[in-house]
Amino acid sequence: MSKDFAVIGLGRFGGSICRELSKEGKQVLAIDSDEMKVNEFKNIVSHAVILDSTDEESLKEIGIQNFEHVIVAIGENLQASILTTVILTDLGVERITVKAQNDYHEKILRKLGVNRIVHPEREMGRRIAHNVISNNILDYLDLSDDHSIVEVKAGVKMIGKSLLELNIRAKYGCNVVAIKRGEEIEVTPNPEYIFAHGDVLLVVGKDKDINRFERNLIID
Amino acid sequence: MSKDFAVIGLGRFGGSICRELSKEGKQVLAIDSDEMKVNEFKNIVSHAVILDSTDEESLKEIGIQNFEHVIVAIGENLQASILTTVILTDLGVERITVKAQNDYHEKILRKLGVNRIVHPEREMGRRIAHNVISNNILDYLDLSDDHSIVEVKAGVKMIGKSLLELNIRAKYGCNVVAIKRGEEIEVTPNPEYIFAHGDVLLVVGKDKDINRFERNLIID
Ligand SMILES: Nc1ncnc2c1ncn2[C@@H]1O[C@H](COP(=O)(O)OP(=O)(O)OP(=O)(O)O)[C@@H](O)[C@H]1O
Ligand SMILES: Nc1ncnc2c1ncn2[C@@H]1O[C@H](COP(=O)(O)OP(=O)(O)OP(=O)(O)O)[C@@H](O)[C@H]1O
Ligand SMILES: [Ca+2]
Ligand SMILES: [Ca+2]
Ligand SMILES: [Ca+2]
Ligand SMILES: [Ca+2]
Repeated sequence: MSKDFAVIGLGRFGGSICRELSKEGKQVLAIDSDEMKVNEFKNIVSHAVILDSTDEESLKEIGIQNFEHVIVAIGENLQASILTTVILTDLGVERITVKAQNDYHEKILRKLGVNRIVHPEREMGRRIAHNVISNNILDYLDLSDDHSIVEVKAGVKMIGKSLLELNIRAKYGCNVVAIKRGEEIEVTPNPEYIFAHGDVLLVVGKDKDINRFERNLIID
Repeated sequence: MSKDFAVIGLGRFGGSICRELSKEGKQVLAIDSDEMKVNEFKNIVSHAVILDSTDEESLKEIGIQNFEHVIVAIGENLQASILTTVILTDLGVERITVKAQNDYHEKILRKLGVNRIVHPEREMGRRIAHNVISNNILDYLDLSDDHSIVEVKAGVKMIGKSLLELNIRAKYGCNVVAIKRGEEIEVTPNPEYIFAHGDVLLVVGKDKDINRFERNLIID
């Protein structure tokens, strides 16, 4: 089986997927009905074609059924997104990722059997919310409904203190799994490690424990 | 100083920020020129008002200058986004996060001195690209230009083997900092840990080492 990707719709979301997959050395077929978009991506991806993905024949002609994974990144035109998805499932494409515009769109995509549905604006909104709560909360990743890993800057209360002194595990129930100083990353850091301004910590734990840790040591 | 947030523009991105900040117990003022949007958020956030953010007087009246952090989540109307941002900087709002639509928009926002500029579709595109490369790559977080942390499902080659046997650190130069089995999370796992189907690993390291690890043990 081919290990290739096809991306339908070269807006900001689909375009960014094309760039990143190409950067990772993957073969990507970029598809858009807009010639300007296709020209923009010609030199970035391995192949780029102009076609209307709501036209089954065109999709068959380029052998879309042989692609390992097809990403539908048409946002605003729900009808085009849904119709394209129906054609892809009919043709037996196994892995389909679709950008959803709203809950209604998502519901229909689920009924069509799409396995991956993405809400880019909504998901980035959640990430940014965590980011704006404190300048010191840099990023986070949900591990489960109630566990996360967060990337935080050492708060002023931590500077000059050691891991042992701060006793984060015992006091807040969460674990410092790595510390970044400049470009150096220390994994499972030494208890004698003394925090300096600008250090970045990776902390894993229950959301409620992490929140308590952040409120006490990270958020100024 | 107040610790409140204001979100201007209640589309998918701004709306999601409002929901998440409220969920985290923060005071949020939600603003949109569209009455329907404001009604939708009335019961979600602490306060919601209908106003056109390109009107300086209206923003002054609600005391926007007293907010700790203002998020401008107007996307499509670049002019409204830029004008709103100019008013906010003029009024002395210190922390401003703005959703950018494209590079041109970003360039202007930088000139205006905006400290946080977000491209939600572009950033989610990058994340999703990593996701689609393998069903086993669940999520990732950039730590620096060349370091990341990834959340991956144990590959078939790992099942039934111990951490010690797989010797991931020595072989691939990256570190398993946590393992998730169901809802249980083991931090700094025991070398005798035997992998089972469905286990999820958090691995920190250089991108090139992580890629090598993924190619050898994670991607089927
Ligand atoms: N039927 C179609 N066939 C091929 N391409 C299409 C079709 N319909 C839309 N597109 C393309 O999909 C791309 C993205 O669509 P659209 O502009 O609706 O999404 P968007 O939500 O604005 O995207 P983003 O938020 O990622 O910028 C556009 O370049 C458009 O030309
Ligand atoms: N001048 C303004 N004052 C207040 N609200 C505004 C103004 N201009 C636009 N908005 C609101 O901003 C919201 C989001 O704007 P827009 O639809 O342009 O962004 P979008 O890119 O579609 O958003 P998203 O991708 O997050 O869904 C809309 O609800 C709109 O009513
Ligand atoms: Ca979580
Ligand atoms: Ca839009
Ligand atoms: Ca959008
Ligand atoms: Ca990285």
